[in-house]
Amino acid sequence: MTDMHIHGGDVYRHPDVVDFSVNLNPLGPPPGVTEAVRESAAFIARYPDARKEELTRLLAARENVPAEELIFGNGAAELIFLWAEAVRPHRAVLAAPCFAEYARALRAAGCDDIVMHMRGIENGFRLTEKILDKLTEDTDALILCNPENPTGLLADPGLMEDIIRRCAANGISLMVDECFLALCDVGEDRSVRKYMETNHNIFLLNAFTKTCAMAGLRLGYGMTCDRALLERMQSLCQPWNVSIPAQMAGVAALRTDPSYLTRSRQVIGKERAYLLGELNRIGLWTSEAMANYILFRVPEGKNGGFEGRLLREGILIRDCSNYTGLGPGYFRVAVRLHEDNVKLISTLRRLLI
Amino acid sequence: MTDMHIHGGDVYRHPDVVDFSVNLNPLGPPPGVTEAVRESAAFIARYPDARKEELTRLLAARENVPAEELIFGNGAAELIFLWAEAVRPHRAVLAAPCFAEYARALRAAGCDDIVMHMRGIENGFRLTEKILDKLTEDTDALILCNPENPTGLLADPGLMEDIIRRCAANGISLMVDECFLALCDVGEDRSVRKYMETNHNIFLLNAFTKTCAMAGLRLGYGMTCDRALLERMQSLCQPWNVSIPAQMAGVAALRTDPSYLTRSRQVIGKERAYLLGELNRIGLWTSEAMANYILFRVPEGKNGGFEGRLLREGILIRDCSNYTGLGPGYFRVAVRLHEDNVKLISTLRRLLI
Repeated sequence: MTDMHIHGGDVYRHPDVVDFSVNLNPLGPPPGVTEAVRESAAFIARYPDARKEELTRLLAARENVPAEELIFGNGAAELIFLWAEAVRPHRAVLAAPCFAEYARALRAAGCDDIVMHMRGIENGFRLTEKILDKLTEDTDALILCNPENPTGLLADPGLMEDIIRRCAANGISLMVDECFLALCDVGEDRSVRKYMETNHNIFLLNAFTKTCAMAGLRLGYGMTCDRALLERMQSLCQPWNVSIPAQMAGVAALRTDPSYLTRSRQVIGKERAYLLGELNRIGLWTSEAMANYILFRVPEGKNGGFEGRLLREGILIRDCSNYTGLGPGYFRVAVRLHEDNVKLISTLRRLLI
Repeated sequence: MTDMHIHGGDVYRHPDVVDFSVNLNPLGPPPGVTEAVRESAAFIARYPDARKEELTRLLAARENVPAEELIFGNGAAELIFLWAEAVRPHRAVLAAPCFAEYARALRAAGCDDIVMHMRGIENGFRLTEKILDKLTEDTDALILCNPENPTGLLADPGLMEDIIRRCAANGISLMVDECFLALCDVGEDRSVRKYMETNHNIFLLNAFTKTCAMAGLRLGYGMTCDRALLERMQSLCQPWNVSIPAQMAGVAALRTDPSYLTRSRQVIGKERAYLLGELNRIGLWTSEAMANYILFRVPEGKNGGFEGRLLREGILIRDCSNYTGLGPGYFRVAVRLHEDNVKLISTLRRLLI
């Protein structure tokens, strides 16, 4: 049970709070997605489609890739474990701070040499070209998240190209987790999708979880031109890993009017600017977030028991002190709708000033 | 994609058929379960409860086991893979014919010595004491299904005791898949549950899938007194493996009036007797099924393209020719409600007599 405490979103032990601890689209699920789940109730006595045929067809069309270059998971998290198990790296590089499941998945796959490339506060936790030095010939795998989590920073496009080039040269399997990318202002322009055809060592991870606010359903997907890798991943997994509600909701998500995403990015952009401005006005350090979440720091002397004090005010945030490379005083908040954000800021003011 | 063709239930490629190919409770999901899925639509923007707290509490109370001796999976199938990966057997024994995912999971876990103990038609595919000879000191794991699938036979209780004793003596990890047991007349009296406390090498696999006809939601569970094994299994898996619809439906299933199961067994018992009688009257060999499904054989000369001929009549059955130990002419049908069963029999009569 030890691993159960390391993530946000524990509204089960904290009901009736405003949850800033998880990074979902603040607009909530598109109506069609919610309706699809309700409709799925009539079909639960069937097995899920092992081939995920409709989902595959729609996503392949949207992404303009052959169906054989797609894989679906019980959330993106399942795919992280399957990828690690299929790649079986001896030495893997992570850029800390990052999502704790990357290291858990690597360890589960028997990887005993996990090199933590530390991004430092001196650069605002920005990824720099120093990571290239870690991408040596004896490195087997690299996992990056873009935008990064918990900082919300986007990698520099030129640096990303250098990383991809270095990985290709040294035979390093590269997973890029873009689960939050569609919620960034730049949209999907920064995706490594465009390098996939020429770099078969790239595995692109994505999900409907955050974009369509459907974390409870578990639906992630991966894309790569390395079809043999996908076959290995499939062989490590049951054929019915994506439930009927998740498949039906995914189909609805893929049929959702693209204006939903445009509107989501507009709201997030405006509210992120509000939150960053107010957090700075309170005197707090913040990450230069470009996504739907912000890392901030509460100074020493004020951060003891801070999460608990906020909880008593009905606000759940993500204590990031347990991230490798962070420590006491670091917290992450999601960008929510204006009313909630105002409540967060006024409560922080009250507690900190 | 090769593994996608080896199971039943493919109503996605065959809509508008009466599906005899999957073994679910013919009464369908209890009303509370269906309603729980509809209600879950309002909560999909949350992450699932990583601790599965309510589900665990209710199941622990019903099974009278500590919460630490339970594990939940994305269907029983996920737990087969996690168990195999946690046990990592070098040599494993299966009693063929059996569910194809056992061997897939063992291979995925790197098991390169899978010993197939063949049950033969000469004993009606009954498990005999001959299996004990296979449970040698250099054997690491045994997977049994009780009742067996696709035959619907229940293992002799004395033989099961001998197997458990032999496994304990030789340090063999034993998984007993009881996913269909609650739908058998003898109810759960034949469960190996009673040997668990004294035999920590037993892992008991169960699911809500078949009993509550909710295969589309993916919710299985396992029980064992080997807590270290469960911790290893958890470490190989994401914390959010069971979706919110599945957790809510599972809670509803555990709160369902037990008379639903009693009624299910009565209907299944009566309809199974009808089907067995009629199949024998047509002159077909049938397994001495005690569960909610029956294996039967269509004689040579009549079985070519038989599944397809039935499909054209709107009936989907499970061609079992690809089971190790079976071959052309073997088919499995689920016990359904009377009207469907009458349609099956009249169609078989028409095609075979």
